Amino acid sequence: MARTVLKFGGTSVGDLERIANVADIVADRAARGELMAVVVSAMAGETNKLVALAEGAAGQDLGRDLFHDEYDVIVASGEQVTAGLLALALRRRGLKARSWLGWQLRLKTDEAHGRARILGFENSGLPDSVDSGEIAVVAGFQGVTDDDRVATLGRGGSDTSAVAVAAALNATVCDIYTDVDGVYTTDPRMVPKARRIPKISYEEMLEMASLGAKVLQTRSVELAMNHNVPVRVLSSFLKPGEPNPGTLVCSEEEIVEKQVVSGVAYSRDEAKVTLYGVADKPGVSAKIFSALARAGVNVDMIVQANARGPERANMVFTCTDRDSPIAKQTLESMAADIGYEQLEVTRDVSKISIIGVGMKSHTGVAETMFTALYEKGINIDVISTSEIKISVLIAAPYTELAVRALHTAFGLDAV
Amino acid sequence: MARTVLKFGGTSVGDLERIANVADIVADRAARGELMAVVVSAMAGETNKLVALAEGAAGQDLGRDLFHDEYDVIVASGEQVTAGLLALALRRRGLKARSWLGWQLRLKTDEAHGRARILGFENSGLPDSVDSGEIAVVAGFQGVTDDDRVATLGRGGSDTSAVAVAAALNATVCDIYTDVDGVYTTDPRMVPKARRIPKISYEEMLEMASLGAKVLQTRSVELAMNHNVPVRVLSSFLKPGEPNPGTLVCSEEEIVEKQVVSGVAYSRDEAKVTLYGVADKPGVSAKIFSALARAGVNVDMIVQANARGPERANMVFTCTDRDSPIAKQTLESMAADIGYEQLEVTRDVSKISIIGVGMKSHTGVAETMFTALYEKGINIDVISTSEIKISVLIAAPYTELAVRALHTAFGLDAV
Repeated sequence: MARTVLKFGGTSVGDLERIANVADIVADRAARGELMAVVVSAMAGETNKLVALAEGAAGQDLGRDLFHDEYDVIVASGEQVTAGLLALALRRRGLKARSWLGWQLRLKTDEAHGRARILGFENSGLPDSVDSGEIAVVAGFQGVTDDDRVATLGRGGSDTSAVAVAAALNATVCDIYTDVDGVYTTDPRMVPKARRIPKISYEEMLEMASLGAKVLQTRSVELAMNHNVPVRVLSSFLKPGEPNPGTLVCSEEEIVEKQVVSGVAYSRDEAKVTLYGVADKPGVSAKIFSALARAGVNVDMIVQANARGPERANMVFTCTDRDSPIAKQTLESMAADIGYEQLEVTRDVSKISIIGVGMKSHTGVAETMFTALYEKGINIDVISTSEIKISVLIAAPYTELAVRALHTAFGLDAV
Repeated sequence: MARTVLKFGGTSVGDLERIANVADIVADRAARGELMAVVVSAMAGETNKLVALAEGAAGQDLGRDLFHDEYDVIVASGEQVTAGLLALALRRRGLKARSWLGWQLRLKTDEAHGRARILGFENSGLPDSVDSGEIAVVAGFQGVTDDDRVATLGRGGSDTSAVAVAAALNATVCDIYTDVDGVYTTDPRMVPKARRIPKISYEEMLEMASLGAKVLQTRSVELAMNHNVPVRVLSSFLKPGEPNPGTLVCSEEEIVEKQVVSGVAYSRDEAKVTLYGVADKPGVSAKIFSALARAGVNVDMIVQANARGPERANMVFTCTDRDSPIAKQTLESMAADIGYEQLEVTRDVSKISIIGVGMKSHTGVAETMFTALYEKGINIDVISTSEIKISVLIAAPYTELAVRALHTAFGLDAV
């Protein structure tokens, strides 16, 4: 019989009442004959509480990599509790169920405690248990290293756990139950006419996720794409039986009616850094961006333009607003070495992106985008593109205006 | 070098400040060259909170044995958190330390989830880790079953964990740090003249523990006696360096100056059940007490006396006050079968006991006891004795008077 994987996040298991609702959803699906693994996060707020305790015990030292193994021991307890509670709630409903912790699953990770990557599964009793009709309640977010220490996957890691379990079980679908009822064409809190997307490709979802649509953790989408696991985003706030179509994240081939543009994403956590009058000679760019990488600054868009003659160029790049002070400091410390004339950091900027696999085969998409923004009097500062995405940097106060204009221009408004 | 085991209970690790104090104590001992394993309980209040969650999820079903495996998954997380926190606090002080969970220790237990018994240790890296100078911070109260499920040892099980770890490490001493500074000749809250006992034998401690002096869990004392592990009860509320002699619990042979009576214990959780006019024929006692055992009633003292001719006897026994309604119900349901004339349950009674290995070789101890009580006008209801203990049942309002009188009569008052 077909195996399926369900995942419930922190707000979906936030208290005993919510856990009871999750148990009802699972029981309803069990009654339809599904063989299931259910992956759970810590109860909302628990992880923060555990992190605060760890910070209290370790002080500043908690920032050191060498302390992260014990941090993992502490925070992984949150998912352990939820897994036990849901197993109890399912048994109370007369179902066979048991909890599985990371070390029992033999979900192997690397040694990067606090942000470990999944290496794979060793043999465990999980597949047999699921096939016997026992519901496997899996503590998300956690695995075990080669030397049998607890490791966690980093914030949002339960999504990744769920997809990994789905891949290991060869599940037909991985259903991510969350506090929204699907992936939207844009942020519905900003644009009331935003529509739920019935199907979206892995590639589009990856761009959406990394551009600030925080429905699924990026790594979980990558993993799903690599293993071709269909992922469905559903609401956990509906009762069993209520229509809950959600959004299916799947391979492009399975989407018959391709939209040119599937969604409009935005991010306000942006800063623009401009270096005026950089010496235009080989090796300067490499020097700048390797220094920024060493400082932990994640550089996004990069534009270089000649300025005042061939020997000098202006260099523009963006990074997160949070990283911008580090970027400034790094560049100032190497001013003599690079030889620029002036450094400018603009922090009140936003990145607006349109995403769609249809772009690959359609022309005129950029033109439509730029025209729509021009008509609203919005100035474009920096542009970057990929095969399925066009991003522009604009002044932050125009964020909402730009998102709404593009949402309308690409025919995404609900009728 | 000598290995030692330290154990800190829930109030000793009740918050981050208390954990910091524990880390200071451990650091002080590490500076003296000790190789240590430190066993910790859950932070005070955590276990109750986790139990309440489990009850909320499972409802009435939590009482069923089959649900206790998941109960264990939930409650064991409390000790896991403390172990991680103390490991962090020790590292912050520049010490090598790591946490060990039940499954990492390979502390094997039977399958009696919620009140599991320790079967022993499988090979783990623990001894080598301790010998390398790394402080092992052990999550108490938990082990792992043969099929790799989490099991807990029942309330107070961390004492038992500590003694088991001490036995496995062949430690020279197992130091139980707690919220009192040792074992007293009687309850110091009741008798201000109570004195700390410097040394007490395992046998005496067992009688003290089972009679209501709740310093050490009974099973931990049994385990210490079986493996001849010296156990020291110390205060965790003192700063490192302050005098903290505590009480050493050890074998009788190591106690040179034996007291005739070492302590006076009392228990208020008592009830007396009297069956009047029971048919005095073979098999009746067996029938009564096997029915009570099946009902989970732990019977303590038993007295039988003939009454009104040879065919009828009066049967008197005691059990905990909490169990007395079950005892009553059980006996009423089998009234026809046993054939007694009347059933009486007296709940407002106390048990007072004097304990001392010296009794074995001294006469007149009972006489001294009964005289002391007689002089205070206290009536003795039931008497039971063992080789190192005499217990009497009295009316509860006389508890304090009796304890004080006996404490004085046996020369235990502080000067």
